[in-house]
Amino acid sequence: MNLAFSLAQNGMGQTWTNPLVGAVIVKDDQVLATGYHQHYGQSHAEVNAIKNLPSIKIAQGATIYVTLEPCNHFGKTPPCTQQLIDIGIKKVVIGQLDPNPLVAGKGVKHLREAGIEVTILNQTGNINQFYNFFYHQQRPFVTLKYAVSLDGKINGPEPKRTLLTGKESKVDSQKLRLQYQAILIGENTLTIDNPLLIVPNQQTDFPAIRIIVVDDANQVNPNLRLFTNSAPIWLLSRQPNYRHWPDFVTVFDQKSWTPTEITRLLTEQGIQSLLIEGGSRTHSRFISSEIVDQITIYLAPLVLGGTALPAVYGTASSQLNFEIKAIKQVGKDLRIDARRES
Amino acid sequence: MNLAFSLAQNGMGQTWTNPLVGAVIVKDDQVLATGYHQHYGQSHAEVNAIKNLPSIKIAQGATIYVTLEPCNHFGKTPPCTQQLIDIGIKKVVIGQLDPNPLVAGKGVKHLREAGIEVTILNQTGNINQFYNFFYHQQRPFVTLKYAVSLDGKINGPEPKRTLLTGKESKVDSQKLRLQYQAILIGENTLTIDNPLLIVPNQQTDFPAIRIIVVDDANQVNPNLRLFTNSAPIWLLSRQPNYRHWPDFVTVFDQKSWTPTEITRLLTEQGIQSLLIEGGSRTHSRFISSEIVDQITIYLAPLVLGGTALPAVYGTASSQLNFEIKAIKQVGKDLRIDARRES
Repeated sequence: MNLAFSLAQNGMGQTWTNPLVGAVIVKDDQVLATGYHQHYGQSHAEVNAIKNLPSIKIAQGATIYVTLEPCNHFGKTPPCTQQLIDIGIKKVVIGQLDPNPLVAGKGVKHLREAGIEVTILNQTGNINQFYNFFYHQQRPFVTLKYAVSLDGKINGPEPKRTLLTGKESKVDSQKLRLQYQAILIGENTLTIDNPLLIVPNQQTDFPAIRIIVVDDANQVNPNLRLFTNSAPIWLLSRQPNYRHWPDFVTVFDQKSWTPTEITRLLTEQGIQSLLIEGGSRTHSRFISSEIVDQITIYLAPLVLGGTALPAVYGTASSQLNFEIKAIKQVGKDLRIDARRES
Repeated sequence: MNLAFSLAQNGMGQTWTNPLVGAVIVKDDQVLATGYHQHYGQSHAEVNAIKNLPSIKIAQGATIYVTLEPCNHFGKTPPCTQQLIDIGIKKVVIGQLDPNPLVAGKGVKHLREAGIEVTILNQTGNINQFYNFFYHQQRPFVTLKYAVSLDGKINGPEPKRTLLTGKESKVDSQKLRLQYQAILIGENTLTIDNPLLIVPNQQTDFPAIRIIVVDDANQVNPNLRLFTNSAPIWLLSRQPNYRHWPDFVTVFDQKSWTPTEITRLLTEQGIQSLLIEGGSRTHSRFISSEIVDQITIYLAPLVLGGTALPAVYGTASSQLNFEIKAIKQVGKDLRIDARRES
């Protein structure tokens, strides 16, 4: 199973909203074949392992170790369970049940009904935490990320960008984006920082969707750097859109975009993880809605003083508790990851 | 010399504004005697080493290793240089010159004039950093200390105390006070937190002076917890004081108490180190005056949200740069020490 978990990670960044899955077919203590889910819309891990068998016959009476419950439905590919039954697999060892209601126990049921022995280890290998969270909580996993001074400020008092952290933190925080399916900022951050919100030289067919909450999509300046890259952009506008935008821009309009309404849209669209990158009023709204599962801060060793912009500012809220999960020196800065206490 | 530095540290917490000093008398590769400065107002390290000699005669032709330049003046005790000359010391090896202008080179000069060989190693052993800072910079070393949330807040929005950190951090931050000669808070913190500002069960004759900046000493509530302990209190009042206070309370009055004026008073009084413990406006004033040499934060894994009180709030200031010197997990919190970049 450890081999299967480590194979699964080879699909990182390419499976989009599909989970990472690895599979190993074993008989008489010999590995016959391995496989993993390589790319969204392509074969599942089990099927790739079957394809890698020297011959189909050899699988008769074999055991398959698969990190996630095999599917039992026609999606982008035919169901895996039937293929395992067809080639004569005798035993299926599963890391975790699939929380996706399309599968959720149905795969195991079908296998057992076909007389196959099924063992469920209840091990996740921590490889699909956002996928699991999404199906358990019915909303995306939300991380607040900000660079902050020792006195808790993200920008100087003037409405122009203050660079707090060093280049190592910039690179590290760009890598962080690779783990999320969507990135969100507010309109002030769009105007003041004029960010691209991409990962330079990113090798993936699925860059994060860049989501901007704006008052009126028609008023957004189309010459901002954001629009020079064709990774998907969603504008969440409070006014109906009349402007013609390039294909990679989608405008969603409704009267208000509270954090609850934003995450409801993402849930409907199957987006399992969201990285919020500012500014202080956007952070404040998500905190007061209690829709924050992780905070990742890059602490810069400087102070900005008493009139600078706090990391979280605006809406009132009560105390939310977290737990520090990781501390890392990044250049002269400090990265701290804190997870919401459940 | 390493032995001398380690002896010096035995005086920790008892030498008050005097430096820690250790001394070792050596002849023919044999340690004849050792000594250290044990207590403010009592014998210096060299004299204690001399007292520990089995006989005075044996010191004829010996070498003394002393961490700090021997004094050449009558202070609380007679000058050390003359005693070294009198017992026939041949060579004096000094860790660092004394930055105190009363000594500063005069000790060495006197020894050399008496025909004694003097070697200066320029090693401080990091044992008297506040003492050295004080004489080099002509003001106390100033540390800002605060417990802060992940969103840079020190208190909830209400004017009552919010407890952020765990008991381990409380104990650690009380120990921090042992290193400072004075602790300062503003009047809001006095009223809202009602602190004692002492170290429980402290074994020292020299507890830190508790300094409170107030508008009018006559209006301060004498029933606050602060006044239940007889460690020294200084009230820095903007109004003249007419009230009778206990002996351990001193009132200084002048029209204003800017950070520059506060540190000038401390310098005049020979106070070499100051720990500032809040609140956000006091922090802001010291930062905008650029009188902050270190920041020690206890980062609590929680958020307080958009209307809570920032760690630093009020006076405008420009960016001050620091360097992270130490990171320590304290219970569920994180202690971070950052030193001002020079």
